[in-house]
Amino acid sequence: REPASEKDNTNKKTCIFEQYVQPCLVELLGTMLFVFVGCSSVIGNVGTTSAIQPAVAHGLALAVLIMMFGQISGGHFNPAVSLCAYLCGGMELLLLVPYILAQMLGGMVGASFARAVLPPEVYANSTGGALVVLSNDLAIVTLAEMIMTMFLTLVVCMGAINSQTQTPMAPFCIGLTVTANIFAGGMVSGACMNPARAFGPAVVANHWDHHWIYWVGPIGGALLTVTFVRFVLGDRKTRIWLK
Amino acid sequence: REPASEKDNTNKKTCIFEQYVQPCLVELLGTMLFVFVGCSSVIGNVGTTSAIQPAVAHGLALAVLIMMFGQISGGHFNPAVSLCAYLCGGMELLLLVPYILAQMLGGMVGASFARAVLPPEVYANSTGGALVVLSNDLAIVTLAEMIMTMFLTLVVCMGAINSQTQTPMAPFCIGLTVTANIFAGGMVSGACMNPARAFGPAVVANHWDHHWIYWVGPIGGALLTVTFVRFVLGDRKTRIWLK
Amino acid sequence: REPASEKDNTNKKTCIFEQYVQPCLVELLGTMLFVFVGCSSVIGNVGTTSAIQPAVAHGLALAVLIMMFGQISGGHFNPAVSLCAYLCGGMELLLLVPYILAQMLGGMVGASFARAVLPPEVYANSTGGALVVLSNDLAIVTLAEMIMTMFLTLVVCMGAINSQTQTPMAPFCIGLTVTANIFAGGMVSGACMNPARAFGPAVVANHWDHHWIYWVGPIGGALLTVTFVRFVLGDRKTRIWLK
Amino acid sequence: REPASEKDNTNKKTCIFEQYVQPCLVELLGTMLFVFVGCSSVIGNVGTTSAIQPAVAHGLALAVLIMMFGQISGGHFNPAVSLCAYLCGGMELLLLVPYILAQMLGGMVGASFARAVLPPEVYANSTGGALVVLSNDLAIVTLAEMIMTMFLTLVVCMGAINSQTQTPMAPFCIGLTVTANIFAGGMVSGACMNPARAFGPAVVANHWDHHWIYWVGPIGGALLTVTFVRFVLGDRKTRIWLK
Repeated sequence: REPASEKDNTNKKTCIFEQYVQPCLVELLGTMLFVFVGCSSVIGNVGTTSAIQPAVAHGLALAVLIMMFGQISGGHFNPAVSLCAYLCGGMELLLLVPYILAQMLGGMVGASFARAVLPPEVYANSTGGALVVLSNDLAIVTLAEMIMTMFLTLVVCMGAINSQTQTPMAPFCIGLTVTANIFAGGMVSGACMNPARAFGPAVVANHWDHHWIYWVGPIGGALLTVTFVRFVLGDRKTRIWLK
Repeated sequence: REPASEKDNTNKKTCIFEQYVQPCLVELLGTMLFVFVGCSSVIGNVGTTSAIQPAVAHGLALAVLIMMFGQISGGHFNPAVSLCAYLCGGMELLLLVPYILAQMLGGMVGASFARAVLPPEVYANSTGGALVVLSNDLAIVTLAEMIMTMFLTLVVCMGAINSQTQTPMAPFCIGLTVTANIFAGGMVSGACMNPARAFGPAVVANHWDHHWIYWVGPIGGALLTVTFVRFVLGDRKTRIWLK
Repeated sequence: REPASEKDNTNKKTCIFEQYVQPCLVELLGTMLFVFVGCSSVIGNVGTTSAIQPAVAHGLALAVLIMMFGQISGGHFNPAVSLCAYLCGGMELLLLVPYILAQMLGGMVGASFARAVLPPEVYANSTGGALVVLSNDLAIVTLAEMIMTMFLTLVVCMGAINSQTQTPMAPFCIGLTVTANIFAGGMVSGACMNPARAFGPAVVANHWDHHWIYWVGPIGGALLTVTFVRFVLGDRKTRIWLK
Repeated sequence: REPASEKDNTNKKTCIFEQYVQPCLVELLGTMLFVFVGCSSVIGNVGTTSAIQPAVAHGLALAVLIMMFGQISGGHFNPAVSLCAYLCGGMELLLLVPYILAQMLGGMVGASFARAVLPPEVYANSTGGALVVLSNDLAIVTLAEMIMTMFLTLVVCMGAINSQTQTPMAPFCIGLTVTANIFAGGMVSGACMNPARAFGPAVVANHWDHHWIYWVGPIGGALLTVTFVRFVLGDRKTRIWLK
């Protein structure tokens, strides 16, 4: 009997590892790589006027990471996406807080690596890849983050959660939405759409001006998406009325 | 009997919602997001000479939106595409006018959001993302819009309607055709190819110079495509002769 | 009996149309749209130093056109590709000359449309999108065209003809190879890789300097690919030895 | 009996050809084309400040080559990738050294072709596409190569070897990771991530400053990936514990 019980024990450990530990580690590692590439591409872009470099780097890194890690953790790498996925029925509650903590930690590690490898004077010129508000009207900046995050989370929910519209190309769609949004709103709010992307460099560069915008805007956008998907856009399983 | 009849009633409501209301709302929301990203990317591009930013932003936003919403509404977001899809047998007549109205309204809302979030002086410099004719010869500009829309609607009809050549990559093909066309004709006519994209910012910025070109050109291009597909390019089901 | 014979007659006409007429018309139309977008993107690029605009426009337009028309004609739009496809067993001999003539005619029509819609002074500055040799050493330029066309036709043969390595993503692979090659060799030889792309604008702009390079280089590259594929890279069906 | 034995003999030759000779030739040819496009795009980029041209050219060329040749050799074109694939269970030991030699030879041939076709003064200005360290702190440069190669090889192992996360889009994911990494670290270390890419141009341009970094960094990154995949990220078949 003992060997059997031992095997059960191992099976249980393996299941806990695969269901809870591995996904959280994947969220940490993925957010780290995303923030490392994102911050470095912004920092390297100083002096040029166009948003191409950060727009494409953020979008491609995110698309590739979701493609690789989506089967394990869902591939969120973004607290607003995790919240939205939970509220639309795409993940369990138990993982929500651990995911968000893993993402915030991953953002800090990624931003630290960016700081480590980039020349200090370049790093300083770009506030370490932390987000800088370019307008005085903070309501406007928050609104911009909200609309863009709404677009992003809509693509997550429709492409990866809602059965009727699910597609294996969802990872690319999500990444390329980030690219399009940075082209659209990069000069207004930085087109962050991701509290972990904002938090990591803010800690490492100790730059906290208007940091709340990058939590309020993305979470507001995620809640807008939840409303749209749950009431209007979802299929009969996702929608909560007219089913 | 009453509960059964009530259930019938609910079923009927659900069907009407899914067949008519949801698609129109999706066209409105999708066109809004497309025009918001499109206008913002044009406005943010002022001062640079290249068309990369608007070309890539328009193309990727459109590709992603069609990928997400194509299963629900077909993912037109463009009156010329809706007309062409109807005439090639890809949608029912009943939805044509509601779709076009939803797209025009979506264009206005998207352009309003772009106006709301962008700095006023930047907004003014770029005529609010409204299309500006760069040549004095209006026939030439109309011809350019016609050829480019012909290319775009050809990709819609061959990739998404004509059975022989249908492909799940059609959304990306359609979006990337827009990108290629903006690289080709952005400096001639703005490479609009979409009356709703022209109409929304025209209302919001009150800029109506030569606005008719962005209806006549795209609709002419769509009719050219219908002729090609119905007579030459379609398969036996789509072609109206030699079958 | 007569109605049956009439029906046979129609069937025969339909078959001839679908096997010979439709593919040639598709090659003409596709090459026209490719050359129109290609020439216009080059012409619109004058004054900027980078190759991004023509590289991406040529690549995307080609990828989309092959995705749309590949099921009908194979989607060559390039005499060197047609030659290579025939020699690797990917098309029948009867279509080779009609395809090449259709591609040359398509190139002329596409270049004419580019001339029609672009401002005359811009058109003149860029030699109408015709290819201009940037080096004095013509052997070097021919070698560059040969290597790049070898890469391009290798992707065509391995991705679309050779069974072992065929992929539904071949159209995108072919288009993106053109993009990569223009980034690599655009400043040496123009990275044409396509006699029809060279011929059309040469006729319309009456610019024939070193035009032979854009036939000799690409055809040489295609023959190199045929050698590699038939002797080394092909699967047992394609390879002509060790099978 | 003799004819049968002769046929056996041919079969054996064919098998050896297909299992050992063809894959090595494919690695040589693929690395040659990758390094040719990569070096030429860097050389043609001199004078512009942005990394777009080399980032996109390297990424697309690599994606296309893996898509074409992955079925034959795995499509490594990179000694660090071959090492990582072997250690994660994705290739047999017998091929490891021949692959690495083929890749180094391919890199030399590709760099020679780039030297042959590019104008000599342009070639000299860019050190022939060889990698140039832009920082004095060599540990930092090595760290940057290590992190970026970790990202790249992670995508290789998770997308192409680990069963749970395998995807037919892996070739594009791998290529686009290279693009994102060049945007991120191009200005620090050149974002090489590939000893063969460094070795070829170093031989041809005889430029050996700090060449060891492009072996130590990528191999370190590959070993990091092996650790992560074997202990944490792999599925039950790939993981070496908790199975």
